[in-house]
Amino acid sequence: MCRWMAWLGQPVLVDELLFKSEHGIVDQSLHARMGAEPTNGDGFGLGWYGHGDGPGLYRSVTPAWSDQNLRELAAHLEAPLFLAHIRAAIGSPVQQTNCHPFRHGRWLFVHNGYVADFGDLRRELMLAMDPVHFAAVEGSTDTEVVFRLALTHGLEEDPPAALAHTVGLIEETARRQGREPLVQATFGVSDGESLWAVRYATQGVARSLFTSCDVEAVQRLYPDDARLGRLGEHDRLIVSEPFSDLPGLWEEIPQSSAVRVARGGVFERQEFHPAVAVG
Amino acid sequence: MCRWMAWLGQPVLVDELLFKSEHGIVDQSLHARMGAEPTNGDGFGLGWYGHGDGPGLYRSVTPAWSDQNLRELAAHLEAPLFLAHIRAAIGSPVQQTNCHPFRHGRWLFVHNGYVADFGDLRRELMLAMDPVHFAAVEGSTDTEVVFRLALTHGLEEDPPAALAHTVGLIEETARRQGREPLVQATFGVSDGESLWAVRYATQGVARSLFTSCDVEAVQRLYPDDARLGRLGEHDRLIVSEPFSDLPGLWEEIPQSSAVRVARGGVFERQEFHPAVAVG
Amino acid sequence: MCRWMAWLGQPVLVDELLFKSEHGIVDQSLHARMGAEPTNGDGFGLGWYGHGDGPGLYRSVTPAWSDQNLRELAAHLEAPLFLAHIRAAIGSPVQQTNCHPFRHGRWLFVHNGYVADFGDLRRELMLAMDPVHFAAVEGSTDTEVVFRLALTHGLEEDPPAALAHTVGLIEETARRQGREPLVQATFGVSDGESLWAVRYATQGVARSLFTSCDVEAVQRLYPDDARLGRLGEHDRLIVSEPFSDLPGLWEEIPQSSAVRVARGGVFERQEFHPAVAVG
Amino acid sequence: MCRWMAWLGQPVLVDELLFKSEHGIVDQSLHARMGAEPTNGDGFGLGWYGHGDGPGLYRSVTPAWSDQNLRELAAHLEAPLFLAHIRAAIGSPVQQTNCHPFRHGRWLFVHNGYVADFGDLRRELMLAMDPVHFAAVEGSTDTEVVFRLALTHGLEEDPPAALAHTVGLIEETARRQGREPLVQATFGVSDGESLWAVRYATQGVARSLFTSCDVEAVQRLYPDDARLGRLGEHDRLIVSEPFSDLPGLWEEIPQSSAVRVARGGVFERQEFHPAVAVG
Repeated sequence: MCRWMAWLGQPVLVDELLFKSEHGIVDQSLHARMGAEPTNGDGFGLGWYGHGDGPGLYRSVTPAWSDQNLRELAAHLEAPLFLAHIRAAIGSPVQQTNCHPFRHGRWLFVHNGYVADFGDLRRELMLAMDPVHFAAVEGSTDTEVVFRLALTHGLEEDPPAALAHTVGLIEETARRQGREPLVQATFGVSDGESLWAVRYATQGVARSLFTSCDVEAVQRLYPDDARLGRLGEHDRLIVSEPFSDLPGLWEEIPQSSAVRVARGGVFERQEFHPAVAVG
Repeated sequence: MCRWMAWLGQPVLVDELLFKSEHGIVDQSLHARMGAEPTNGDGFGLGWYGHGDGPGLYRSVTPAWSDQNLRELAAHLEAPLFLAHIRAAIGSPVQQTNCHPFRHGRWLFVHNGYVADFGDLRRELMLAMDPVHFAAVEGSTDTEVVFRLALTHGLEEDPPAALAHTVGLIEETARRQGREPLVQATFGVSDGESLWAVRYATQGVARSLFTSCDVEAVQRLYPDDARLGRLGEHDRLIVSEPFSDLPGLWEEIPQSSAVRVARGGVFERQEFHPAVAVG
Repeated sequence: MCRWMAWLGQPVLVDELLFKSEHGIVDQSLHARMGAEPTNGDGFGLGWYGHGDGPGLYRSVTPAWSDQNLRELAAHLEAPLFLAHIRAAIGSPVQQTNCHPFRHGRWLFVHNGYVADFGDLRRELMLAMDPVHFAAVEGSTDTEVVFRLALTHGLEEDPPAALAHTVGLIEETARRQGREPLVQATFGVSDGESLWAVRYATQGVARSLFTSCDVEAVQRLYPDDARLGRLGEHDRLIVSEPFSDLPGLWEEIPQSSAVRVARGGVFERQEFHPAVAVG
Repeated sequence: MCRWMAWLGQPVLVDELLFKSEHGIVDQSLHARMGAEPTNGDGFGLGWYGHGDGPGLYRSVTPAWSDQNLRELAAHLEAPLFLAHIRAAIGSPVQQTNCHPFRHGRWLFVHNGYVADFGDLRRELMLAMDPVHFAAVEGSTDTEVVFRLALTHGLEEDPPAALAHTVGLIEETARRQGREPLVQATFGVSDGESLWAVRYATQGVARSLFTSCDVEAVQRLYPDDARLGRLGEHDRLIVSEPFSDLPGLWEEIPQSSAVRVARGGVFERQEFHPAVAVG
């Protein structure tokens, strides 16, 4: 099981949330207490919006807890919007090009979950991509294929709609092959302005997804942190697992829903259901 | 430009040919005197036939000259048949899954050269693969696609014929897209019994390819090497570049030809021309 | 907590014991059920005696469970004597030169445990080394210092005696600095002929150490393994943790003792007590 | 031969100088046209002063030209003061802890050159360190020892004086051992406010060292670069090799001298001669 987190708010040192938070995702990963897989040492990725053109990416197959460069970067990088992801590989190789976030232009994409029977579906799904995106695939994960399909279906115009089409297409492809479809997912998407998160499973309970309740909640998380004590009212965290020793501070994002967070306190929620691609 | 070498003969320590040979491929790689690219530090691979099932693979993106594990392996691994490859990346990521040799069952495959406009051809070529091989693609090089296409076209029955069909298919695909086709290649293939080598270019001079002339030649290469001094008459080297300070000891493999080396002194040569896939 | 295992007997594929054994050290490492630290993804090492001069070493900071080169090596390397070690770093950097086994000439050395207050003792201990060994230190672990001190005190003549002097020296140095000494250790040592294992703690219970009871026990471990079914009566395993689903097949090595295993069924045990270096 | 560069001035994207400059150090490293060693693929390091406490460090043993994380970092990191270093290993292992810059508190240190017979001098030199610095040594390079000795001799108060004492101590130690002393060096040092550079060799010509002449010169380097076109008059580069296609824009720093650059256009030069440590 992978884990991810996203921050949108005032600029913070990545460190505060990545390493200094008790039971943050690096710590979770090392202990892996809640995960389906025993540990999460198969790759780390951080995407952030800051200086330079488009988002920056740091992706590494060194376990996050012993990656000295990641610690340095986190301790010296300040960003108002970032996504971090820790990977537990299920079959595909442990390599940088299989680490999340995936990127296209200004867009970043992370995923926790999996596409069942992906090995059997992969060829058909890749054929369904815009050839430009086919050519851009560098790794071998299901997530990269989901991302490139979503881009093919208009992610840059309407992320939830594009993901709904993509999930519908995957389920339809599985059915056409006589398989029981199963997409198990939380997705995180950003263009540097908004942050979208989707929680969905074809059947059964979807992977967990939480949002920080409100600023006071986040401040209670770090009572001694002068920086966070100065939080504005519009800062927001989205996480695959709550920072567990602080119960009551997180709100679960309901299954089959999509949320959008944006500057100025925007927090919108809509239902999420797979759409069948026509034609 | 990549470099590769292959050995078929009595068991030798890989070290003797990889590190201890003056101007062997690791040394060539560090100096890169003859190459089109300035250095060859983008990945190394060794495939050998020995203990256990099928060939073993060691692939690494650490430059060969500073890869301590490679030095150890070479110094303690004895094999009667092995292929080694040093990569100069042209566009595709530097990662283990892009390192040669590629493997399928008992088969190993290495390549020096490139497929022109590969980014534009990749999708069509991948569709032309047997779906089983499509699913097995882990990296993003042209070589892996050539290998999986050749397997689709019967590499396991007749390697030169399968490669001729594959090259024909690639050239045909380029032409159909309105492009000038160009496959620039030396290929090395083995099943653990025989070693095939192909030298071909659609136009112009193909990448160089040499075979050791005869055992006396090899012995003259290492006059002080007790182990090689005991060489039998059937030991054979194939190399992309001659070990250069010993001129006269190498025989160039002519362009548009394929050779097969096997135990017992077998050395066969045939012409190699692309075949157009029918249907 | 680190983990290690050693094999002395007929040649086996390393794979059989490293990856194919249920609850072998790689599997233990991924699950880390018994360890003091939550996981063991901080470096792996394998030392084996086979072809070429002296033992071969493979050391890597990629977690063992996702290290493709390790899997390949294990699946294609046959050895009559090898030591494998999985590291959980306590403070010192995750780097190849901090991975066990450490090597000097024909000698290999592994360690599970630690020297308390090592940062404060390191300088004095390094001064106590033969300058030749001081110059040979490449990493920053306590284990490498213990090994080089033991070599200084005659490891190549009498390993248990040299380790007893080394442990005595460390404890004495701590006391002289006004510290409570604590050496917590199981050590594994080999010269390619014999295999020594030591279990000791200055105080409290020492790290666990086990030996396989007898050949029938090992055979019962792998009832379906044709290779191991042909085990001779002199094959022997030493492990830091038993392969846990097969209770009753392992014999605990008592605290404060040293054992020596050698070809031909040799299995000797002696007491182990720190000796105070004189002069 | 290593290479290094340093920037002090207005905040710039590291990318502009590291990758986008024709014949910048990464490009030099790949081609290695001027170096004593054939290539420089043995480790890269970047130290910068920006957000967070003290300088950030990125150190990697992936060759700089294929290190995707380095490219990302460079393209998204803006800093008013940074040092970059590319290593050609001479003997000591290729590992992160051997990559420059070395760091202590706010201080960064890089070096091009070597201490002759370092293996024989290392023990004595390490004994001459403050024990706190002895304990902090993580790698095995001569440079780390020089840095820790300089810290012992007051680097934080007066860098040129501390380096003069350190060089004197090294030469004296060599002489006492009956050796011909040779320190071959350019050093770069910073505390985040000033940037010091020293050029020295015990005998013969010291490694080269250059400073950008003045702002107009730098602007002529990048006539089409809007960002650099806006350079203030106090921006300054120090480089081990000039960016070679722009002759006439660099001023050589004379042998046996030290310079200090600081904000506001400070540029001071003094002679540099080894000082013999008294007592």
